[in-house]
Amino acid sequence: MRIIVAGGDGFCGWPTALYLSKQGHDVTIVDNMVRRKWDDELRSNSLTPILPLEERVQRWEEKTGKHISVYDCDLMHYDFLKEIFKQVQPEAFVHFAEQRSAPYSMIDREHAVFTQTNNVVGNLNVLYAIKEVTPDCHLIKLGTMGEYGQPNIDIEEGYIKIEHKGREDVLPFPKQPGSFYHLSKVHDSHNIQFACKIWGIRATDLNQGIVYGLHTDEDEHDEGLINRLDYDGVFGTALNRFIIQAAIGHNLTVYGSGKQTRAFLNIKDTIRCVEIAAENPADKGEFRVFNQFTEEFSVLELAEKVQRVAEAKGLKVSIDHLENPRVEKEEHYYHAVNTSLIDLGLEPSLLTDEHISRTLDTALKYKDRVLKENVLPNITWK
Amino acid sequence: MRIIVAGGDGFCGWPTALYLSKQGHDVTIVDNMVRRKWDDELRSNSLTPILPLEERVQRWEEKTGKHISVYDCDLMHYDFLKEIFKQVQPEAFVHFAEQRSAPYSMIDREHAVFTQTNNVVGNLNVLYAIKEVTPDCHLIKLGTMGEYGQPNIDIEEGYIKIEHKGREDVLPFPKQPGSFYHLSKVHDSHNIQFACKIWGIRATDLNQGIVYGLHTDEDEHDEGLINRLDYDGVFGTALNRFIIQAAIGHNLTVYGSGKQTRAFLNIKDTIRCVEIAAENPADKGEFRVFNQFTEEFSVLELAEKVQRVAEAKGLKVSIDHLENPRVEKEEHYYHAVNTSLIDLGLEPSLLTDEHISRTLDTALKYKDRVLKENVLPNITWK
Repeated sequence: MRIIVAGGDGFCGWPTALYLSKQGHDVTIVDNMVRRKWDDELRSNSLTPILPLEERVQRWEEKTGKHISVYDCDLMHYDFLKEIFKQVQPEAFVHFAEQRSAPYSMIDREHAVFTQTNNVVGNLNVLYAIKEVTPDCHLIKLGTMGEYGQPNIDIEEGYIKIEHKGREDVLPFPKQPGSFYHLSKVHDSHNIQFACKIWGIRATDLNQGIVYGLHTDEDEHDEGLINRLDYDGVFGTALNRFIIQAAIGHNLTVYGSGKQTRAFLNIKDTIRCVEIAAENPADKGEFRVFNQFTEEFSVLELAEKVQRVAEAKGLKVSIDHLENPRVEKEEHYYHAVNTSLIDLGLEPSLLTDEHISRTLDTALKYKDRVLKENVLPNITWK
Repeated sequence: MRIIVAGGDGFCGWPTALYLSKQGHDVTIVDNMVRRKWDDELRSNSLTPILPLEERVQRWEEKTGKHISVYDCDLMHYDFLKEIFKQVQPEAFVHFAEQRSAPYSMIDREHAVFTQTNNVVGNLNVLYAIKEVTPDCHLIKLGTMGEYGQPNIDIEEGYIKIEHKGREDVLPFPKQPGSFYHLSKVHDSHNIQFACKIWGIRATDLNQGIVYGLHTDEDEHDEGLINRLDYDGVFGTALNRFIIQAAIGHNLTVYGSGKQTRAFLNIKDTIRCVEIAAENPADKGEFRVFNQFTEEFSVLELAEKVQRVAEAKGLKVSIDHLENPRVEKEEHYYHAVNTSLIDLGLEPSLLTDEHISRTLDTALKYKDRVLKENVLPNITWK
């Protein structure tokens, strides 16, 4: 298949592009390299040293003989984007190319406005390009489990059957997102659903949990293909951030009680889920929603796992309960359905001590690159 | 009360500003006059001749002795908006200042992107200005009944209690908006709800039906204060558009079967609902939703009413079923709850033949101003 991976220079996009290329697909990366610019803005970096994108794909071609095309394009630039659609004629468009950090969107008004404009308009442009150039192209859009918030009922996959006053309907699952970033994904979901309805576009919204891990089979033991790894208070996420904190001898920074429960998955499952979606496209006009995660954990549970694995390696690790910089429920019901992708063939890579140990080894290898002043959260929701 | 009416030069905003001023409130209009520019862009006009805003408010002051301040400000310009908040110190901010036409948002990609950016970012700026300058200010935001779409269950006021798999919660009512414009209002609602939660802002989302009518007590028999009246296929809405079509001898343009049912209210009730919301502010941190309409009609029913009233005046009127330019259900269940505003004191001005007759008389008076080529819909959802 001809597949565009937008955001193919990022943490999820890069290993997805490699995996789809290895599977024999004709992969094109569209990326404006902005994730690297945000590192500059925040004076931060990836724990792992990553090559420029052009060198990464060259290395991949040398190693595998497989070519990945690259366009340095911002999805906000519609004319260029449309031209790419004309040249590539994609059968699937995998859309990772959004600002994906909740804290980044909460820095101030400018960052909130940037996040919503960038994500919503970029996605609208993709919808118009599909409509105008390749109406059969399957949009595979990365959403987030955070769109749902933490309702006191089970979270279904995108829709819920509601009985009310003697009547019933199947309606979009109510959304209660927790940051201007998460809100942008809710806006996207509504826009895509409408485009499917009026233009007959086929789309899959992958409401992804929090991704952990680093290595996939494609980059294993190849420094030039290594994925980025974020540890800072802005782009670092629970579990990966804890592992790196353990590696540098920093307390694990749990926000509040840590009883917040979230959905998680291994980066290896991210790439496999995208492949499953691509191989099983949504119907014309269908807005399909999959909940893309494999397990649920509380944040404190993860910190304790990391502590145990790190201590077995002789590292001293304590857990620190910081004042929660976010406005969120700490004690709440949480249970979400995730059967669709498993029914289509996903075999989850569950979290094991061995996996934590493996990522911790990589973190120890590169620990001198960590800028310690970036580890603590410095952005509050208030 | 010190009240800002944003969009105070428009069809709903102008009579609201006059009414609140008459009631003794200290009214400030914020408007960038863009509604008049859209007339230029679309080569259209208001049926009624309207004075420039500065002259309108001067006329009001001459007539009543009451002063209305005016700022020519685009809500996209945050620094100016914030300065206005500092100077006015508003206790309520009535937010009409959005692009409000569904067809306009469907013209093409540029208009879809403009509508969502203008509405969503303008509203984010208002939220930040309230947070930063006047945290107690009550945001009275115009939403639309179109946010809900046409679900097969009764539409509640913003929230619905859902029982699911043995658990229950009260959650935001699911949204199924039918244009990029309606989507922008859904995005706004989600953003406001979040801002209420994290910053303690007080907000009322008025999910308004389709507004008909023209005159209010404040402009009655005063040409200089007259409200604008839209009849074109882009900004003209059902009922008002039919009345003007009857006046110029044009067929009434019903889209499809006309069995689409929608919620309606008189412009006199719009201004009263805003007053009720202002006098009964939401609590700190409360995101309150009222459904602001008084009656439900099918589009065909309204055309038939107008036909009957017009024929009684000796006008010849036929009803034309055009191919529906929109993608929408024509046969559907529709029933929405609207008790909150009535419980707070709204006494609905229901639709009477006399009311249609009165607006028709005004339309006949100005019928030579109508640009007939603008009457038909020329924007399709496909």
